Amino acid sequence: MHSAADVQGILDAQAPLVARCLSDLGRAAFFPPDIPFQAQEARETRFNGTIGVLTDGAGRALPFDSMRRALAFDADDLDRAFLYSPVLGVPELRQAWRRWQRGAQAVEPIANDVPSTLPVATCGLTHGLSLVADLFGDVGRWLILGTPFWGNYRQIFGMRRGIDVRTAPFYSSGIGGRGQRFDPEALAPVLAAAPAGEPALVVANFPSNPGGYAPTREERERFVAALCDAADHRPLVVVCDDAYSGLTFSADAVATSLFWQLAGRHPNLLPIKIDGATKEFAFFGGRVGFLTFGLDLGAEASAALENKISSLIRATVGSPSASSQIILLKSLREDPAAEVGRLRQLAVERYRAVRPALDALDPNLLRPLPFNAGFFVLMQLVPDLDPDHVRRYLIETHDVGVVSSQPDFLRLALCSLSAEQLPEAMARIERGVRELAAG
Amino acid sequence: MHSAADVQGILDAQAPLVARCLSDLGRAAFFPPDIPFQAQEARETRFNGTIGVLTDGAGRALPFDSMRRALAFDADDLDRAFLYSPVLGVPELRQAWRRWQRGAQAVEPIANDVPSTLPVATCGLTHGLSLVADLFGDVGRWLILGTPFWGNYRQIFGMRRGIDVRTAPFYSSGIGGRGQRFDPEALAPVLAAAPAGEPALVVANFPSNPGGYAPTREERERFVAALCDAADHRPLVVVCDDAYSGLTFSADAVATSLFWQLAGRHPNLLPIKIDGATKEFAFFGGRVGFLTFGLDLGAEASAALENKISSLIRATVGSPSASSQIILLKSLREDPAAEVGRLRQLAVERYRAVRPALDALDPNLLRPLPFNAGFFVLMQLVPDLDPDHVRRYLIETHDVGVVSSQPDFLRLALCSLSAEQLPEAMARIERGVRELAAG
Repeated sequence: MHSAADVQGILDAQAPLVARCLSDLGRAAFFPPDIPFQAQEARETRFNGTIGVLTDGAGRALPFDSMRRALAFDADDLDRAFLYSPVLGVPELRQAWRRWQRGAQAVEPIANDVPSTLPVATCGLTHGLSLVADLFGDVGRWLILGTPFWGNYRQIFGMRRGIDVRTAPFYSSGIGGRGQRFDPEALAPVLAAAPAGEPALVVANFPSNPGGYAPTREERERFVAALCDAADHRPLVVVCDDAYSGLTFSADAVATSLFWQLAGRHPNLLPIKIDGATKEFAFFGGRVGFLTFGLDLGAEASAALENKISSLIRATVGSPSASSQIILLKSLREDPAAEVGRLRQLAVERYRAVRPALDALDPNLLRPLPFNAGFFVLMQLVPDLDPDHVRRYLIETHDVGVVSSQPDFLRLALCSLSAEQLPEAMARIERGVRELAAG
Repeated sequence: MHSAADVQGILDAQAPLVARCLSDLGRAAFFPPDIPFQAQEARETRFNGTIGVLTDGAGRALPFDSMRRALAFDADDLDRAFLYSPVLGVPELRQAWRRWQRGAQAVEPIANDVPSTLPVATCGLTHGLSLVADLFGDVGRWLILGTPFWGNYRQIFGMRRGIDVRTAPFYSSGIGGRGQRFDPEALAPVLAAAPAGEPALVVANFPSNPGGYAPTREERERFVAALCDAADHRPLVVVCDDAYSGLTFSADAVATSLFWQLAGRHPNLLPIKIDGATKEFAFFGGRVGFLTFGLDLGAEASAALENKISSLIRATVGSPSASSQIILLKSLREDPAAEVGRLRQLAVERYRAVRPALDALDPNLLRPLPFNAGFFVLMQLVPDLDPDHVRRYLIETHDVGVVSSQPDFLRLALCSLSAEQLPEAMARIERGVRELAAG
C-alpha cells in the first residue's frame, strides 16, 4: 500500500460499506510508508539509525532517575495519576513547565517583560501542533515551511485542515564549497506571494528535524527581520516547534528558542511555542507536550483563549494523560537542569563522535547538510541513486538502518546510536554508497 | 463567559490579532459551563456528587492493586513505557484487550463467528469517538442521538466536524406510573427522515450517561430491529459507546455490549465499539481507550483501514501514551476479571444503597429516570424550578454537589460517593427541592 489510491482501492473492493461511509477526510487519510515503515524494516539491523528516539544504542531507553524512581508514587500523586487531569493540564505541572521554559531550558536569561502565557499540557507535541491547526488553519490559508521539513506537518496542517502548504528551500549552495548554507531569507518571497492581507502561518523548527540545524545569531536576526517584514503586510502566526530545544553542539548555534526573540516583537505577529517532555526529557512514551503563546493577553483574554482550547481538547482527546504528567512532574520538582543537562551532554558526545566522519565524507558520494544541533544528520546523495534503494541496500549488505527521503536524502539518527557506534555506521553508509555508485 | 459570543467578544476586544487569526473552527470553539465548571464550583462540598470519576467518596482514587504494584516496572516494560508506542497501540495490549472484550468483559459468551477487529488503542474513549467523527463524519451528515445524551457528543461530532446532530427522546411516559420508560423505537422516525440513501450515524451508549440505563433483552431486540430497518434504506454507522461496560445492577439489564448483537447482523450496518480502561479499570488519568469494528475485514482491508486510522492518529496526537498502556497491561496480564469484578461489586453496593432512597422520593418533587446501570442517577424536577438554581441552592444550603442540565434534570454521580453517603445525599437533595418548591 504505497498510495492513498491503493488503500482506497482495497476498501472499495473488499469493504464497500466502510468505503461508502468514509468522509472526505476519511477518504483523504493515508499513512505514508515513511519513517515508521522504514524503522520496521530496519528493526533487525545491528546499527539501526532509523527511529527518532533516544536510546543507549542497543534499543534500550534512557529514562531519567527521577522518573524511574517516580514510579513509586505517594498517595497524593497516585490519586492525581489515576484520576482525570484538568483539560488544560495539572496546574502544578503547568506552572513548573513555565519556570522551566523561562529558566534552564532557555539557556540565556529571559527578561521579565518578554510575554508568555501559562503553558497548556497536550498529548505530545503533535497534539499542540494539531490544536494550532484547528485554531488557526482554515481551508486555503497558507502555511509556509522551509525544506526539508518534518513530513507530519503536511498531515497535521494539510490533510486534516485543508491548509495550503507552500515551501521554499532552507539551504542553498554556499560559498564555503562543502555542502550548503542556511538561507534566513528563504521564506520571504513565499510570504510575499500569499493572498494579500490574509493571515498566514509559518512553522520554525530549530534545532530542526530532519536538517539538524540551529541558526547562528546573525542568521536569527535576519530570519526574524524577514518575518517582521511579512507581518507588516498580514497577520502572521509563527509556530516555534521546539521539540529539540537546547540540543545544540557548536558555539555559534543559538540554543535559546526563537520564540523568545519573537514574543512581544511585532504587533501583527503571533508567536506560538510547542515544546515538551518527549525529546527534552527523553520521555517519548509519555506524550506530554505544551502549547504556549508569546503574548501578554491579560487575564480575561487568556481565559477566553483557554476556553477555546479546552473546547477543542475536550472534543478530540477529552484530557491529557494524568499519569504521564505526574511522572514528568517528578523530574521538574527535583533537578531538571541536571538531568536534561546530562541528556544534552550525551548528545554532544555523539555529535563529537560523528563530526570527524562527516567532515571526512567523500564529497562525490555524500554531502551533509549544515549540522550543528538536534537528533539527526541529513546527507545528500551525490551519485544519481534512488535514496530508498540505497536505504534497502544498507540494510541488506551493511546492517545499517537509515531513513531515506526524496529526492536524494539519507537521515541518520544520532539519538539511537552510541558514540562508539557512530563512526562505524558512517563508514558503512559511505562504503555502501560507493559500492552502488560504482555499479 | 457563558456563550461562544461572550468568548469571541473578549478576544475581539482584547486580543484582536488572535481573533483575526482564528479559523472557522477556532471561532466556533467554546467550552460550555457544564460539568467541569460545576464540579469546580462544588469542590468544597462534603457530598460532592458532581464528577464522573470513581472515588472512595472522599475524593481519593481506587487504583487496582496490580496497577499500583505495576509502578515498579521491569526493564522491558520500563523501556516500553518510556519509548514511543506504535501509533495503533502496544501489540501485546491490543491482543490482550481483544481477549478481554470477547471474554470477561462481555459477561455472556461471544460465539467465535461473531466478527471483531483487533482494537486500536486511543487517547481515551473520546479520542476513539473523534476518530469515528473524522473517518465518517461529513458536514451535513446526520448523527442521531436519544436524549438525554452526553453533551460532549455535540462537540466531537457537531462542532469539530459539522455533523448535523438530530435527537429523539429516549424516555417516554410509562404505563407503570412512576417515572418514564425507555422507548426502543424512539430513533426510528428520525432515521427515516434522514436524507434519502445517505449514510447516517447513531451513537448507542448503554449503560448510558447521564441516564444510567441498560435496556432489557426485549428492548434490545426491538432497538436492534429498528436499526436494521433503517439499514435497509441507507448505510448506517452504529457507534456503541461502552464506557460503562458491565456496570449493570438489575437482573433484567443486559450486561453484554450491544456491539456483539450488531456485529455481522446486517450487511449495511457498520458497528463500532468504543471502550477502554477509563471507567472499567478505574484508570481515569491514563487515557487508554480502544476503537474496534464489528467486521471481518480480512487481512488486507483491515490493514487499509488501520492505515487510514494511523494517518489520523499521527496527524492529531502522534501516538497514544505508552506509559499508560503498560500500566494497564499489568492488570490484563494478571486477573482483570477479579479486579474489574470488585469494581462492579462496589458499584452494585452503591446502587443498593441509593435504590430505596430513589423509590421513596416524593413524585411531586423528583422523578428518577429509569436507573439500573452505570455511574449516574438522573432525576427530573417536577416543580417549575430552574435546575441550575436548585444545584446552587444544594451547594449553599445542603452541602451537596450535583450536576444540573436543562430543561429539568439533576444528575448525581454514584461513582464519587460511598454507599454510606448516598442515602443522606439523596435526602438532602429531596429536602432542598422541597424547600425551594415551597418558596
